Amino acid sequence: MDIKVSIIMGSTSDLPVMEEAMKFLEEMGVQYECNALSAHRTPELVMDYAMGAKHRGIKVIIAGAGGAAHLPGVIAAYTSIPVIGVPVKSSNSIDGWDSILSILQMPSGIPVATVALNGARNAAILATQILATADETLYGKLTAFKNAMKEKVIEANNKLQNK
Amino acid sequence: MDIKVSIIMGSTSDLPVMEEAMKFLEEMGVQYECNALSAHRTPELVMDYAMGAKHRGIKVIIAGAGGAAHLPGVIAAYTSIPVIGVPVKSSNSIDGWDSILSILQMPSGIPVATVALNGARNAAILATQILATADETLYGKLTAFKNAMKEKVIEANNKLQNK
Amino acid sequence: MDIKVSIIMGSTSDLPVMEEAMKFLEEMGVQYECNALSAHRTPELVMDYAMGAKHRGIKVIIAGAGGAAHLPGVIAAYTSIPVIGVPVKSSNSIDGWDSILSILQMPSGIPVATVALNGARNAAILATQILATADETLYGKLTAFKNAMKEKVIEANNKLQNK
Amino acid sequence: MDIKVSIIMGSTSDLPVMEEAMKFLEEMGVQYECNALSAHRTPELVMDYAMGAKHRGIKVIIAGAGGAAHLPGVIAAYTSIPVIGVPVKSSNSIDGWDSILSILQMPSGIPVATVALNGARNAAILATQILATADETLYGKLTAFKNAMKEKVIEANNKLQNK
Amino acid sequence: MDIKVSIIMGSTSDLPVMEEAMKFLEEMGVQYECNALSAHRTPELVMDYAMGAKHRGIKVIIAGAGGAAHLPGVIAAYTSIPVIGVPVKSSNSIDGWDSILSILQMPSGIPVATVALNGARNAAILATQILATADETLYGKLTAFKNAMKEKVIEANNKLQNK
Amino acid sequence: MDIKVSIIMGSTSDLPVMEEAMKFLEEMGVQYECNALSAHRTPELVMDYAMGAKHRGIKVIIAGAGGAAHLPGVIAAYTSIPVIGVPVKSSNSIDGWDSILSILQMPSGIPVATVALNGARNAAILATQILATADETLYGKLTAFKNAMKEKVIEANNKLQNK
Amino acid sequence: MDIKVSIIMGSTSDLPVMEEAMKFLEEMGVQYECNALSAHRTPELVMDYAMGAKHRGIKVIIAGAGGAAHLPGVIAAYTSIPVIGVPVKSSNSIDGWDSILSILQMPSGIPVATVALNGARNAAILATQILATADETLYGKLTAFKNAMKEKVIEANNKLQNK
Amino acid sequence: MDIKVSIIMGSTSDLPVMEEAMKFLEEMGVQYECNALSAHRTPELVMDYAMGAKHRGIKVIIAGAGGAAHLPGVIAAYTSIPVIGVPVKSSNSIDGWDSILSILQMPSGIPVATVALNGARNAAILATQILATADETLYGKLTAFKNAMKEKVIEANNKLQNK
Repeated sequence: MDIKVSIIMGSTSDLPVMEEAMKFLEEMGVQYECNALSAHRTPELVMDYAMGAKHRGIKVIIAGAGGAAHLPGVIAAYTSIPVIGVPVKSSNSIDGWDSILSILQMPSGIPVATVALNGARNAAILATQILATADETLYGKLTAFKNAMKEKVIEANNKLQNK
Repeated sequence: MDIKVSIIMGSTSDLPVMEEAMKFLEEMGVQYECNALSAHRTPELVMDYAMGAKHRGIKVIIAGAGGAAHLPGVIAAYTSIPVIGVPVKSSNSIDGWDSILSILQMPSGIPVATVALNGARNAAILATQILATADETLYGKLTAFKNAMKEKVIEANNKLQNK
Repeated sequence: MDIKVSIIMGSTSDLPVMEEAMKFLEEMGVQYECNALSAHRTPELVMDYAMGAKHRGIKVIIAGAGGAAHLPGVIAAYTSIPVIGVPVKSSNSIDGWDSILSILQMPSGIPVATVALNGARNAAILATQILATADETLYGKLTAFKNAMKEKVIEANNKLQNK
Repeated sequence: MDIKVSIIMGSTSDLPVMEEAMKFLEEMGVQYECNALSAHRTPELVMDYAMGAKHRGIKVIIAGAGGAAHLPGVIAAYTSIPVIGVPVKSSNSIDGWDSILSILQMPSGIPVATVALNGARNAAILATQILATADETLYGKLTAFKNAMKEKVIEANNKLQNK
Repeated sequence: MDIKVSIIMGSTSDLPVMEEAMKFLEEMGVQYECNALSAHRTPELVMDYAMGAKHRGIKVIIAGAGGAAHLPGVIAAYTSIPVIGVPVKSSNSIDGWDSILSILQMPSGIPVATVALNGARNAAILATQILATADETLYGKLTAFKNAMKEKVIEANNKLQNK
Repeated sequence: MDIKVSIIMGSTSDLPVMEEAMKFLEEMGVQYECNALSAHRTPELVMDYAMGAKHRGIKVIIAGAGGAAHLPGVIAAYTSIPVIGVPVKSSNSIDGWDSILSILQMPSGIPVATVALNGARNAAILATQILATADETLYGKLTAFKNAMKEKVIEANNKLQNK
Repeated sequence: MDIKVSIIMGSTSDLPVMEEAMKFLEEMGVQYECNALSAHRTPELVMDYAMGAKHRGIKVIIAGAGGAAHLPGVIAAYTSIPVIGVPVKSSNSIDGWDSILSILQMPSGIPVATVALNGARNAAILATQILATADETLYGKLTAFKNAMKEKVIEANNKLQNK
Repeated sequence: MDIKVSIIMGSTSDLPVMEEAMKFLEEMGVQYECNALSAHRTPELVMDYAMGAKHRGIKVIIAGAGGAAHLPGVIAAYTSIPVIGVPVKSSNSIDGWDSILSILQMPSGIPVATVALNGARNAAILATQILATADETLYGKLTAFKNAMKEKVIEANNKLQNK
């Protein structure tokens, strides 16, 4: 199967957060590539990465970064593939506000699909939803996933009742 | 051509903001449906709307709301179609912070792809990017749009130089 | 005696906060039911829960949730029973600001009675005050509770003086 | 009919916001008394007001204030009647944040049921919901009100479709 | 010597913060009384305390509180003695913002002299400065204290140079 | 009569806010001097001003400034006279937050008595309260002022009743 | 004379703010070049601009941008020339917070010298200070400018005294 | 070699943060002096320090401080040497917001080049960039440093790929 999702993060220190995205994609059987490149320390590599993504067959990009988190926006500048941004509450972040605002408040013309602070798992679900717009089997998997979540909640609620 | 994008807003008072989304989709030749339904005043209608979307052939939903903006999240609860959330700085909003946080900070399992405050045009671009993952012609249109933006910037910059 | 108060939370992970509400109701001899249902993972169950509450004899609902905390507002959409919202500072919350604003800033027409961050005990006191508007015995218990608080403060202050 | 709701505001300058509460109560046929007393300029009068409320037959108090908005909390200190707090975005308020936090963040033991910034109408709806816990006729009026809101949304949505 | 400064806090849980005020007053040889009374749990006692302060010979009041910190403002409502407010970052506070805004943003007519979050020591210095406006000996002690601080900084800086 | 209060502001552009302080002092018959000196543009003059204040017989300083408002703190560094800080919401301020935090959050050892944003009138009341700690006649005037405020509230409330 | 300062802004809509920088440089007789290029719409042009700056003899770059303001950071990624960032409170900005945090919170290794919101004039002063580290004549001009500011404050203060 | 950079901090408690600046300057072979002086406790020393800096041959000043962080601005008031401000998240800071705003929001005429919260290392890089505007050898070192950072990212990314 082809690699259709690309995960990228600003630093390997974002890995503990971003691994949640990888886990979900693996659960769904969606293949991905993974990079840790900095928009500020390796700008040319990020440019090459972003410009080549379409050519590599990538359909969705998940980009996580903290602090003045420019990575998702810089990538979105170089491609028309949907870019999902994950604000990371890194050690150099002010309670995550800088990460959120730097990713969310993109100017008109260059959107980044922003998810919750440290929401890498939701970024992967969103990426899968995007792929599923053209893949009914995958849509079915998402529905099953959603039903499984529901069952878990019901089960936990039943336990609570009988406590 | 089929309607693949659905725009929904919490109130017709959000229309001035959300019309930017409609304009962009029209520029791209992407057909859309449009509704103004409240997650709080018409919850059953929103539920029916969300549950029926897949069946109606909708591929992406753009949902705008202000204040305690539950609409995008409530819709995302009922479908696995990607939901793009537009935080609206409405009159009952605290500088937009409530709208942003109510849409962005969704719990694990139910993502909403959030764009900038009042960023309805970017929501439409993102929706088009999602459709374009399975439609090369549309991807071409997005590339042309991106090039046109670039030209405009260059032209304005040239004028600035010669001022 | 009838069950007149219903406690609900978005996830069993909110239990340590919400148990404070249960403790107070037990102190007052007010019976309650308790559920952990997610507005996003189990939207239909929440709808059924809310629509059935009046019929079950429930007079007040206490709903706690964190992050993009839609649960209290979603319930308030389906019933005219007073809904008390408890913003929970959960792990996926930005210092509680998202929980507070998502619950507090409800649109005109659908109020949620919001209490302090993690203020489940106050939610239970408020619920009891609401029941007491039609129950003088319960009002008397609240007055006694208030006096007991007062005595405790006086006693602690006396200790401080004699330190 | 008896006066069961008491509206109070910190200053007559809060009147344009608080009048929304009066209008709703009049729509519902709920009688109310109305005062403008300051917790800081007339503390004894506020104390007398709060301590006498129960005796006057008041079942719910709606208290609006701006800035360091102590009025709702000070009243709640003197009575066990439910107090609904309306944070007012007055001229001496920092975008409403001071009003919200001064009302919402009450200590354990003394709750204030806080509604949205300038949400006086919602405060009145909440007050009516509280009265309706012991008054089925009033509950019926609230249900009718809720249905009317629904109809209005549907009508506006229909207009939008046919635009 | 007479007691001219009165320290009051909303709860004995504020003691670890407020003890810094006591320590400074003792260093300066300024006598003080100390109470822990809640504006919300013991409103009458706080009223009596505030109304009697002038009569007891008190010249300055230092009032510390957390969360919706009404204590300093409520006291200021009952007396024309200067009230110094200490916002306390208590466990029920949102990073201290609620404490700060509830104390600082007093309405026109009723000032509270607010110091930094947890700044009890500075409150005591300010109280001493106020007493010193009519007591040259005390002013001399403050000058000596200021010089001692200066010396400490110089000494530490010298150590840093020779490191 | 001697000049015992000194008003200083960072710029003559703060005059519309700071004039409220002058008006109150005139109402109380308290004489004052007034300067507009910048801590950043005229640091030596501010130093001379602060170091000479005690010698000029000044008992209290009221210092207003906006943005990175260093003026009150810089003055407090040079004298042990109480300094009251007025955060001004000037055009170069971020909704007043910078002004507030720059004045309020002084380090241990150097307090500034901070009042509400644009609260120059309250600063003057506080200054008068400080002078009144050693002047019973002035204390009497403050009590009369407080009573007059009370009367005004009662009168306005009476009008509201009869409306 | 050579062009040593380069001004760049994210959009010509930032011109009213950024012109303040040009005016100051002209007052100082410092020549500059000026561009309006977007980090997101014209990323390659920004890269070329930044990589060529050193070669063009540029010593300092002043970069202004609003919203998710990536421009200063993206430029700093491509050059070791000092980059001064001006957060612009543009129409798509949340009270300027997004602009400030996106520019200020750069990761370790890639600094941006951030000035106040809309502080383009200060950016130009800072740029001149940087050039003056190797140009005593320019340093003399800055000293004269500083003295002129001082004189203006003194003159305004004198007028205030004689009012 | 001459000392061209001066590091100053408001208190020796800022040393753990500010040492990062020293380390970088040592890596670059840039000599520096270091002081810990308080703008509030030792204002005359800070004035002397700032006024003498130019004479001592200092080209750039790095000033770190927390809370109401006046130190960088006070220094900038006394000299035209570029001042780099490091907001320190000290124990008396409100999550760093006070430190940031007190340093960043300087009034027109007196800039401070602000870096990220606790960004002392970036302050040192910026200082080196400023010196390098007149020192090609130093510019070369900065380029080498930038390349080394790039290599490190590439190496870490390679490891991630082969994991």
